[in-house]
Amino acid sequence: MLEEVLKKVANGELSPEDAQKELATFENLGFAKVDHHRKKRQGFPEVIFGEGKEASHIIDISRAMMKKNDNILVTRINSEKAEAVVQVLPNFNYDHISRTLFMKNSEDNVISKGYVAIVCAGTSDLSVAEEAAKTAEAFNVEVRRFYDVGVAGIHRLFAHIDEIREATVSVVIAGMEGALPSVVGGLVSHPIIAVPTSVGYGANFQGLSALLTMLNSCASGISVVNIDNGFGAAYNAVIIQRIADSNKE
Amino acid sequence: MLEEVLKKVANGELSPEDAQKELATFENLGFAKVDHHRKKRQGFPEVIFGEGKEASHIIDISRAMMKKNDNILVTRINSEKAEAVVQVLPNFNYDHISRTLFMKNSEDNVISKGYVAIVCAGTSDLSVAEEAAKTAEAFNVEVRRFYDVGVAGIHRLFAHIDEIREATVSVVIAGMEGALPSVVGGLVSHPIIAVPTSVGYGANFQGLSALLTMLNSCASGISVVNIDNGFGAAYNAVIIQRIADSNKE
Amino acid sequence: MLEEVLKKVANGELSPEDAQKELATFENLGFAKVDHHRKKRQGFPEVIFGEGKEASHIIDISRAMMKKNDNILVTRINSEKAEAVVQVLPNFNYDHISRTLFMKNSEDNVISKGYVAIVCAGTSDLSVAEEAAKTAEAFNVEVRRFYDVGVAGIHRLFAHIDEIREATVSVVIAGMEGALPSVVGGLVSHPIIAVPTSVGYGANFQGLSALLTMLNSCASGISVVNIDNGFGAAYNAVIIQRIADSNKE
Amino acid sequence: MLEEVLKKVANGELSPEDAQKELATFENLGFAKVDHHRKKRQGFPEVIFGEGKEASHIIDISRAMMKKNDNILVTRINSEKAEAVVQVLPNFNYDHISRTLFMKNSEDNVISKGYVAIVCAGTSDLSVAEEAAKTAEAFNVEVRRFYDVGVAGIHRLFAHIDEIREATVSVVIAGMEGALPSVVGGLVSHPIIAVPTSVGYGANFQGLSALLTMLNSCASGISVVNIDNGFGAAYNAVIIQRIADSNKE
Amino acid sequence: MLEEVLKKVANGELSPEDAQKELATFENLGFAKVDHHRKKRQGFPEVIFGEGKEASHIIDISRAMMKKNDNILVTRINSEKAEAVVQVLPNFNYDHISRTLFMKNSEDNVISKGYVAIVCAGTSDLSVAEEAAKTAEAFNVEVRRFYDVGVAGIHRLFAHIDEIREATVSVVIAGMEGALPSVVGGLVSHPIIAVPTSVGYGANFQGLSALLTMLNSCASGISVVNIDNGFGAAYNAVIIQRIADSNKE
Amino acid sequence: MLEEVLKKVANGELSPEDAQKELATFENLGFAKVDHHRKKRQGFPEVIFGEGKEASHIIDISRAMMKKNDNILVTRINSEKAEAVVQVLPNFNYDHISRTLFMKNSEDNVISKGYVAIVCAGTSDLSVAEEAAKTAEAFNVEVRRFYDVGVAGIHRLFAHIDEIREATVSVVIAGMEGALPSVVGGLVSHPIIAVPTSVGYGANFQGLSALLTMLNSCASGISVVNIDNGFGAAYNAVIIQRIADSNKE
Amino acid sequence: MLEEVLKKVANGELSPEDAQKELATFENLGFAKVDHHRKKRQGFPEVIFGEGKEASHIIDISRAMMKKNDNILVTRINSEKAEAVVQVLPNFNYDHISRTLFMKNSEDNVISKGYVAIVCAGTSDLSVAEEAAKTAEAFNVEVRRFYDVGVAGIHRLFAHIDEIREATVSVVIAGMEGALPSVVGGLVSHPIIAVPTSVGYGANFQGLSALLTMLNSCASGISVVNIDNGFGAAYNAVIIQRIADSNKE
Amino acid sequence: MLEEVLKKVANGELSPEDAQKELATFENLGFAKVDHHRKKRQGFPEVIFGEGKEASHIIDISRAMMKKNDNILVTRINSEKAEAVVQVLPNFNYDHISRTLFMKNSEDNVISKGYVAIVCAGTSDLSVAEEAAKTAEAFNVEVRRFYDVGVAGIHRLFAHIDEIREATVSVVIAGMEGALPSVVGGLVSHPIIAVPTSVGYGANFQGLSALLTMLNSCASGISVVNIDNGFGAAYNAVIIQRIADSNKE
Repeated sequence: MLEEVLKKVANGELSPEDAQKELATFENLGFAKVDHHRKKRQGFPEVIFGEGKEASHIIDISRAMMKKNDNILVTRINSEKAEAVVQVLPNFNYDHISRTLFMKNSEDNVISKGYVAIVCAGTSDLSVAEEAAKTAEAFNVEVRRFYDVGVAGIHRLFAHIDEIREATVSVVIAGMEGALPSVVGGLVSHPIIAVPTSVGYGANFQGLSALLTMLNSCASGISVVNIDNGFGAAYNAVIIQRIADSNKE
Repeated sequence: MLEEVLKKVANGELSPEDAQKELATFENLGFAKVDHHRKKRQGFPEVIFGEGKEASHIIDISRAMMKKNDNILVTRINSEKAEAVVQVLPNFNYDHISRTLFMKNSEDNVISKGYVAIVCAGTSDLSVAEEAAKTAEAFNVEVRRFYDVGVAGIHRLFAHIDEIREATVSVVIAGMEGALPSVVGGLVSHPIIAVPTSVGYGANFQGLSALLTMLNSCASGISVVNIDNGFGAAYNAVIIQRIADSNKE
Repeated sequence: MLEEVLKKVANGELSPEDAQKELATFENLGFAKVDHHRKKRQGFPEVIFGEGKEASHIIDISRAMMKKNDNILVTRINSEKAEAVVQVLPNFNYDHISRTLFMKNSEDNVISKGYVAIVCAGTSDLSVAEEAAKTAEAFNVEVRRFYDVGVAGIHRLFAHIDEIREATVSVVIAGMEGALPSVVGGLVSHPIIAVPTSVGYGANFQGLSALLTMLNSCASGISVVNIDNGFGAAYNAVIIQRIADSNKE
Repeated sequence: MLEEVLKKVANGELSPEDAQKELATFENLGFAKVDHHRKKRQGFPEVIFGEGKEASHIIDISRAMMKKNDNILVTRINSEKAEAVVQVLPNFNYDHISRTLFMKNSEDNVISKGYVAIVCAGTSDLSVAEEAAKTAEAFNVEVRRFYDVGVAGIHRLFAHIDEIREATVSVVIAGMEGALPSVVGGLVSHPIIAVPTSVGYGANFQGLSALLTMLNSCASGISVVNIDNGFGAAYNAVIIQRIADSNKE
Repeated sequence: MLEEVLKKVANGELSPEDAQKELATFENLGFAKVDHHRKKRQGFPEVIFGEGKEASHIIDISRAMMKKNDNILVTRINSEKAEAVVQVLPNFNYDHISRTLFMKNSEDNVISKGYVAIVCAGTSDLSVAEEAAKTAEAFNVEVRRFYDVGVAGIHRLFAHIDEIREATVSVVIAGMEGALPSVVGGLVSHPIIAVPTSVGYGANFQGLSALLTMLNSCASGISVVNIDNGFGAAYNAVIIQRIADSNKE
Repeated sequence: MLEEVLKKVANGELSPEDAQKELATFENLGFAKVDHHRKKRQGFPEVIFGEGKEASHIIDISRAMMKKNDNILVTRINSEKAEAVVQVLPNFNYDHISRTLFMKNSEDNVISKGYVAIVCAGTSDLSVAEEAAKTAEAFNVEVRRFYDVGVAGIHRLFAHIDEIREATVSVVIAGMEGALPSVVGGLVSHPIIAVPTSVGYGANFQGLSALLTMLNSCASGISVVNIDNGFGAAYNAVIIQRIADSNKE
Repeated sequence: MLEEVLKKVANGELSPEDAQKELATFENLGFAKVDHHRKKRQGFPEVIFGEGKEASHIIDISRAMMKKNDNILVTRINSEKAEAVVQVLPNFNYDHISRTLFMKNSEDNVISKGYVAIVCAGTSDLSVAEEAAKTAEAFNVEVRRFYDVGVAGIHRLFAHIDEIREATVSVVIAGMEGALPSVVGGLVSHPIIAVPTSVGYGANFQGLSALLTMLNSCASGISVVNIDNGFGAAYNAVIIQRIADSNKE
Repeated sequence: MLEEVLKKVANGELSPEDAQKELATFENLGFAKVDHHRKKRQGFPEVIFGEGKEASHIIDISRAMMKKNDNILVTRINSEKAEAVVQVLPNFNYDHISRTLFMKNSEDNVISKGYVAIVCAGTSDLSVAEEAAKTAEAFNVEVRRFYDVGVAGIHRLFAHIDEIREATVSVVIAGMEGALPSVVGGLVSHPIIAVPTSVGYGANFQGLSALLTMLNSCASGISVVNIDNGFGAAYNAVIIQRIADSNKE
């Protein structure tokens, strides 16, 4: 793009002042451009991190996005705050398990050609698992849920292992000892995004235990995101799914 | 596969005893099969974790693998031990920066259709970066190296950002404050596997600083592996590259 | 069990499809069977971890278990939630010290042939001690309580040491410095399950102090469970008591 | 000053008793004197750390200071307590974002000859950033704010980098991975005071992550203050700005 | 025993002075007696912790024990020190993997009626596993070894699960993520003594990762000993096996 | 004492049964006796740790103690609980700063012949300082308070240093960086009991910072108690003061 | 600079291709230019971090810098490596206390108009203190050394406090409890760069103790660098001294 | 002293200049004087911390002290360095267990009127125990040693408890779980200085385990020094013994 601008200046199509202005926007750095392109190409909704933001703030950002017909996903928003937002913007749907708000604005409904497996150790990890699931779905990626298949009753996992293995990528979520990703990692050959959760007590130390377990996994193909970061894991899964999709066309 | 065995038993092709034996091997569990299939399909070499193994042990494993014409990669092996192995098995090549041994046995030379960017903050992180690079290359995946592009002199990164952006996936390696993946993550739209290194001193706490930085990254699309785990990051990158490749055919 | 299924298939008693179904349940893995057997053989009640579950959830699980006439134990349930459960299922008894709900459904009243000593350092550790005691009793194991016998007044322990020594196994519970298991361990020859508690302040770091003390005990015969995990310790004690019982018949 | 006192004693102008009294105050130690001089010379308001102090306590201290016509800044004071103070001393202005109270009493309005850049990664760090800004302004130092310019969208920083570079000193504030000071440090040549914030979750560990990042920065010219210590960073910036100012006269 | 002494004093069989002497020995405390009894009853050899002791020290203690015909086990002794000991006391056998010295003096060869399963995740954990195995064997307890059955290739574990399930108690050893005890715990119904090892690197933090994993295990029936404490785990297993044995007679 | 009992048995003054009973109490162990003697000799009140105890519990213990005319000190009791106790036992005085209840029952008013200096860094540490002061006073030891003399304004300390130096022992209390004991330790020659407090924020980590500072002090004569443990420090000071007193008689 | 380039393109002085090339270098980003300007303006030598670099590497970098007549400072280089460098480049001077190599190439000898005080708690911190001192001197900034003035003998500090107070900025270095910066901070009104050192043992935890102390200092005007980072502290001091100098001209 | 100086100035006995000089030495601060007085009064030898000092350094300091006929104690000095010192100063005696050098120069042999009990858990803690013992003896304080009396065999402690109870103060040393001070604290009524040692492995974390145990002790009368700080504990004990002695005269 720099090339084009310079040519226009040489041709007199653009004055030095105007060229400077244009290059002074993010576009002149060569990478901000991507930002816009990505949204258009991928239909990725903007995602608003709700924690620490006031309802009015979320409403303002949402209104700006509604003008562009983007889908809007708000994560980590509790029910009180969500209610305040929904009263003003009733097109939002609140899901209290995943603690997400979602508004469908885009008409793009092209679903991914494969699916992401969301695998979850216990019922207490449900909130994080659903944050991941809702995130992937907001990006038009198909999700299949495999919940309550923790390692202490490993036969529950085996009952579903074939379907998990067919996924493009798995998001594996576990609290307490966090051993599930290691076991899944030994059974599948696709990438695994592991999510430690803060579920547990005592020597769990708010998720530290599960986090260290996952970082030290002796199974290959596992990478880790922050404690309770269901959104982040799903985002990774989505962009891997896109790699698969983009080539199938 | 269980289905087939059962049918053979019903047909009298297989006695209950033989069926039990076969199912008693890993294959009867339905997932060990993958192990063999994966190797044939993907030509993935076995990887030997050299640390804590004696030279004689490594030689024995390698000989077993040579019979199958697999490529052999040994990681985390110091020069003394490597020398002892090479004296017996001279087809091994030792690379002292990445501390890896590699032996090319497979005649499969089909190179990946995209490449993995190995991005590295400082010259001190070179050893981990090269472990990642050598691993990916051992798996027949093309690698492009972008070294010494740390955030304290961010223009060095920008000089290469276009080429990095064209990669299928990036492995981003940094010690000390470990900020590089966050910056790269804001500039590219593909998955980033972040590797904290133990390079640094004092409040670095043997890589803890960089590890926490990467786990807390506010950029999306980043997942993290263990400190100094160049191999693990590359393995993740390789299986993502395979997703891209498999669909391009 | 696999053997039997295969024979039936060979005999035509079972079609391959039905065999596959059966083996596709947990039983076909050869170990899930245990689960059912264990309950029948040992009369072990299911235990529901109450923390993080809603009252309605606990009620549903309990109703399912009531059909099988299992005893039902719910741990880590606060008084509000317990009250909500008891209103619907009045056969539950709530114990506010141990924060457990218990419902006696099984008619099996065979008491263990030995007893478990529950030894507890201070009155502040009572809640964890009682969780252990109620758990063991729910499993029909006799319990003897030795409370408030911490090391700072070691004569209190000695007054009871003979009776403690006659136990099959001891559960020893302590917060703050957590030294009690080491002292008891030097005085008895049976296994000790040590439970650190989060009782204390400052450099106690929510039980870390007591946990490390117990892991580093120089007395032999001590093993440790998670901070405040009275249930887990009792469960270990129960299965050791069962070893003693099963052989006395 | 000791010299003067001794001469007066020798001259009989001062009795030994009176000399002892005078020297028994802080002045006789030779350094407390500074304290008074500094206030007169620099017009520095006293700063009251509000946390853990009762409203009545803050009112008493403020009244004492009002007699000397000092500006008064109270930090870390929540809205309830602030309201109670303002009802009694209505000249105080409360700013709820920075959680500071300020009362202008001094007539000294000489503004600094340069400015301090307050650079802030995300909107969640606003509270700390404003504590820093209000502090510097209370000391009559000009502040320019550059908010929401975190490394994940680094073009936002570049849009303002020239103006940041012209500052005398920068206060750079970031939570989560805390990478912003490293990036700014590579782009400017003046001192940077880095402030980690406790904004984040999971492996952020209440600001530890950002703190370690900043201490390990590979950029030069960066020093660090305590987590969330906006006041401390601003104070450092102010005394550096004074060095610049004092020489420009 | 106090009772007997007092009666003898009342009967004049024992003078107050002699009674005092006897009670002044450990026996008068009522528990030291156990020490002697236990050895006679159980044939438990004394165990010498070799780390930090000089060879001459170990030789002296061993000589004292040889007089009583006790078996002698020395743990955590490196090859140099062991060699020095063996030169003086050639009846000692050194095992360099477990780093133990053992001398058979007792003629008691009654083997346990059940066995202890030593289950081990990887070849790097061998040293700790063998310390456990040698310890149990020194106590005349039968051991069965199940090595290299880590969770990343869980089929290896399943191939042996039946034999593991028949054990009286399992010692389960794992480094890195330490997930193996959780998986075994879900498959067997006997007690599991879990041993974290310091095998690993980076976020393993010298065994902390595996330790936390095991303490947080969601499987029941698991208790934990110190990092690398193969001896301690085996000792626990031995006294549980004794409970089983004592009742089978 | 054992001697006396045995003689009585030999003399027939005491039956073996009665002797056993007496020896079966704590006295027969030879050390519990001290307990009673100490109270009589030193007039030490029993101290009740209020945290985690219910009001009714505290009332019961207090009533038992009132019968013996002991002074009664309750520490770590909040105002609500204290109020409930005072309503039933109006002789208790509650001090809301130190969060202690005290009841004077003993008529022993012999004051110590020296005094304990309570030295405190900031006003926020007042609660801990007063817990220490009230404790020492409850034990009839004279206390002199030196508050708000932290190292950041070291002249405040020097104004009082002579009086501090005349104390028998100092209790030095500080939060945040906890440097005060080191400075005092360099200026006095008597023992210093250092108390870290949890006052501070951020990298203070609930008192860890001050605790480590004090443990690492390069001044001699300093020992440390738990974070916020004003009572423990005072108790140490009291028994040192008793050493001084006992010899002055 | 962008402006100039664009004008030249408009004027035809520069072809679009050449403009692109120029802007494609670091200069076209608008900040890399600074790098060159800064060196010319400030005469700042490049600084080579010696740790982890081989002697040959250091020689190569040095030779490149010698061509530009820059002063060359190498930090964290041990004596063996330094010797190897000096044999090839004999103009280097090695200082074994600070472990630095320095080569004077620039003829710029303009000394700063003020001085930096290097204040150091104990003789064991000397190595870090001298790294700081040599660094500042390499940048032509005057240094005054105040060593062995730790808080445990605070009179040693007071003997020099007047001269310290006249400095532009102080670098204050301490290990163990790290209390010195707090005390100095209460006595001077200029900025203090605090350096924790790893000197100490036990609960010092390799400098963590001193680091936390300094971050929590209740004195104002203190900021902190990494453990043992004498270079970083001096660099901060140098750029503050430059602010003072630049305005005095 | 200030009073005297001022009077002399008023009387003309001292010129203001001379007065200033005298007050400018440490003495004029009112506390440095103590330093000299203490040595004369108490005969306390200077103590040299040997770690990190070169042999030549130690020799120089020692020579200076020999001129004053002080006893000289050097702590934490290994055998190589000690040998180098002894070759030059043969009056030094080296003790390789405590790693101390001692030279008797003072003719003061007045022994303390009570004794310090050095109580030690295991033989591995001997080095720290002897550092404490040698320190106290160097200060002419009588020491009685009670070694290898750890809590795992508590009868060993009881055999000596009467003699321990007669001490003025106890230094109690323990590694691993560090429980010994709590037990001793419940049996004696004098002050206890607790010393955690770094003896142990795994979850001992270099003494952290024992340190936390001691800080959290529920026994009263215990204060703690740094890990392995035998010298510091003994110094505390010595100054407490001096309190007892000074009053007995």
